[in-house]
Amino acid sequence: MRTPTQLGIRAEAMLAELAAFTDGDGNLTRLYLSPAHRAAADRVASWMRDVGLDVGFDALGTVRGRLKPTAPGRAGNRRLLIGSHIDTVVNAGRYDGMLGVVAGILAIEEILARHVELPFGIDVLAFGEEEGVRFPSTLVSSSAVAGSLLPSDLDARDADGVVLRDALIAFGGNPDAVTSAAYAAEETLAYLEVHIEQGPVLEAAGLPLGVVTSIAGQSRFFVSVMGEAGHAGTVPMALRRDALAASAEMMLTIEEVARAGYAHQMVATVGRLAAKPGAVNVIPAEVVFTLDIRADADAPRLAAIAELEKRFQAIAIKRGVSVTLDKFYESPTTPCAPRLQEAFAGAVLDLGLAERRLASGAGHDGHAMHHLTDVGMLFVRCRGGISHNPAEFATVDDMGLAVEALIKAVERLAADAVSSGDST
Amino acid sequence: MRTPTQLGIRAEAMLAELAAFTDGDGNLTRLYLSPAHRAAADRVASWMRDVGLDVGFDALGTVRGRLKPTAPGRAGNRRLLIGSHIDTVVNAGRYDGMLGVVAGILAIEEILARHVELPFGIDVLAFGEEEGVRFPSTLVSSSAVAGSLLPSDLDARDADGVVLRDALIAFGGNPDAVTSAAYAAEETLAYLEVHIEQGPVLEAAGLPLGVVTSIAGQSRFFVSVMGEAGHAGTVPMALRRDALAASAEMMLTIEEVARAGYAHQMVATVGRLAAKPGAVNVIPAEVVFTLDIRADADAPRLAAIAELEKRFQAIAIKRGVSVTLDKFYESPTTPCAPRLQEAFAGAVLDLGLAERRLASGAGHDGHAMHHLTDVGMLFVRCRGGISHNPAEFATVDDMGLAVEALIKAVERLAADAVSSGDST
Repeated sequence: MRTPTQLGIRAEAMLAELAAFTDGDGNLTRLYLSPAHRAAADRVASWMRDVGLDVGFDALGTVRGRLKPTAPGRAGNRRLLIGSHIDTVVNAGRYDGMLGVVAGILAIEEILARHVELPFGIDVLAFGEEEGVRFPSTLVSSSAVAGSLLPSDLDARDADGVVLRDALIAFGGNPDAVTSAAYAAEETLAYLEVHIEQGPVLEAAGLPLGVVTSIAGQSRFFVSVMGEAGHAGTVPMALRRDALAASAEMMLTIEEVARAGYAHQMVATVGRLAAKPGAVNVIPAEVVFTLDIRADADAPRLAAIAELEKRFQAIAIKRGVSVTLDKFYESPTTPCAPRLQEAFAGAVLDLGLAERRLASGAGHDGHAMHHLTDVGMLFVRCRGGISHNPAEFATVDDMGLAVEALIKAVERLAADAVSSGDST
Repeated sequence: MRTPTQLGIRAEAMLAELAAFTDGDGNLTRLYLSPAHRAAADRVASWMRDVGLDVGFDALGTVRGRLKPTAPGRAGNRRLLIGSHIDTVVNAGRYDGMLGVVAGILAIEEILARHVELPFGIDVLAFGEEEGVRFPSTLVSSSAVAGSLLPSDLDARDADGVVLRDALIAFGGNPDAVTSAAYAAEETLAYLEVHIEQGPVLEAAGLPLGVVTSIAGQSRFFVSVMGEAGHAGTVPMALRRDALAASAEMMLTIEEVARAGYAHQMVATVGRLAAKPGAVNVIPAEVVFTLDIRADADAPRLAAIAELEKRFQAIAIKRGVSVTLDKFYESPTTPCAPRLQEAFAGAVLDLGLAERRLASGAGHDGHAMHHLTDVGMLFVRCRGGISHNPAEFATVDDMGLAVEALIKAVERLAADAVSSGDST
């Protein structure tokens, strides 16, 4: 039986070992179905076997380690899923995704060492594709587990023209057995995931762990503002229809509306902007900028979008320009189940830590798993909020606390299942 | 002797004839020292001869038509210069520049027909290069007339690699006689130019003519804002250092400061903007935008720049970003001489029109001529403020009034010269 610090040291060592499996030259880049993915998956499988799990690969390459119920007389099919992903972005950090898989394996090891009586089985899952870097699709492997992957999703091609279906065969997967990867809803209790926060909230709060309330829904738009070109020297300010000045006012409005949505952890970002004709001495006639808006629930996000549309129109009318919003992406909010939030929150309190709840602004496998079962997530503080970068970092102590909190959350779910008879 | 309407009809016919001289295919494009420039210059020269001027080309290709003093007993060298340019931008209108040359020729014809007694000579000048389209330099031919052209300016090359010096020889000019194009300051009384406004002020005021107070000085900057990149979903609004949001606030500040400079006809424009890294889901870390600011005098422009620098720094500090301004262009204000403004204003009032004074936001040959002598300019209303475009348009009536105002302004200067003995 390990202390949290010992668990953290072990997690750090496993993450360091995994980080060596890369397709990159001098950096960590591990894309779905690549040789590095294969090597990392094999190492994960060997760790799973070492702690006593029954290991297999599903049709999409997800590593699955099975633990049967440990409580006397419990042989049911119901199981708790614990997982995350082992693919990375290009030039990645070593914590994003991998920590959740390592935490699951270490938690199982401890649960067995501590003789926790589980009235349900546990499957630890190491998904192969979450980042969506190699193929245009995302969450391919967790969608297969959740039963929501479409056969046509396997027709996607990577930048080299390789079809996902063929890459899967080369990896050792089976594209014709996609449906076999799916769990039945009635056999799953819940899906739990430990993940680095990838943001600065916990660090700013001075807390190692946070309970995720939801995976934020998001909407993305192209906002097009049409004004009138004119000579920068001859058109008085009062007679201008400047598309960029109008866009500037809209951008500050976006910021104001997002700040007003603080209670819903609303964030809104203008990440790209193009102004035409783009000459130093010509008043911009046309601006297109992107808007990415997220919140911890759908209603406040949709209300903010409606508010923005209204205020954009008022700005446009005042300035004699026109504005249109074209939505090009929409993803609904994935709520985290209250009972799973309570399990993680209780575990955090058991560790003597203050409870902090926060939405996840980034997407996760839980977004796909929500189609199958209840989702619960635990966030781990990461330095500077930095992720998708070699500078990504979480401390040994914080990771150890996360593994211990996961163990305690599983114990709470086991106790709940026994008291409610839910596991039978 | 013609009425203003008759003068306008004649001006329109001459402009139509000039518009046929083009290097373009189906549009008006007449670059400096091109075959079309040569043909247009020859036509201008023939018109000048027809009205009785002594015509020559200077070393830089400027057409010069000379009228001797017409007052009895006046044979001095002092002369009034009237002119504009006959080169155009690519896909140009037919009024920009050419109207000033045609107005000068028609004014001479009328002055002679009306037997106005001139105690000074008049030179009508058709400059070859004002737009700066073919060669990187601008105001080449008027700078030569003003004596401020540098021999090295003739080393400029066009996009095809042709050196200005060689193009000048092919045109029939003489690059070795640049200094011969220069007037002596003591032989010039003033420089007058009629030009379309190229802006919407006179149209908005419902007035055909405007007296120019100055050719606006201008400063141009690259403004660089450095913030911090971050995940669009995970960094709360309060923890962002968004370079684009900061730039939006700066852009609205620019607009506010320029509007406050209304009394100085201040205008400020952000024409180009680039945001990096430029991804829909990444908070912009770096923005560079251009600032072009102009006013009718140097002091208010420089004060506005100082105000902007102060306010930019305050915005940067508030938002945790940094900002730097790099000036890449500066052109001082060219004031129009009060006595020439009075001559034009008196002429406008004589025509029963309301007087309106305004600065020129665009550059003109007067900017170069100011190095030689006093400058006076008269603006003519143009439709929609549109220029540098085939849709450029001024009415026959407005052009006729402009020619008549030019004649009356010359008469006023003649009367002033007689009363002050200035012409002797």
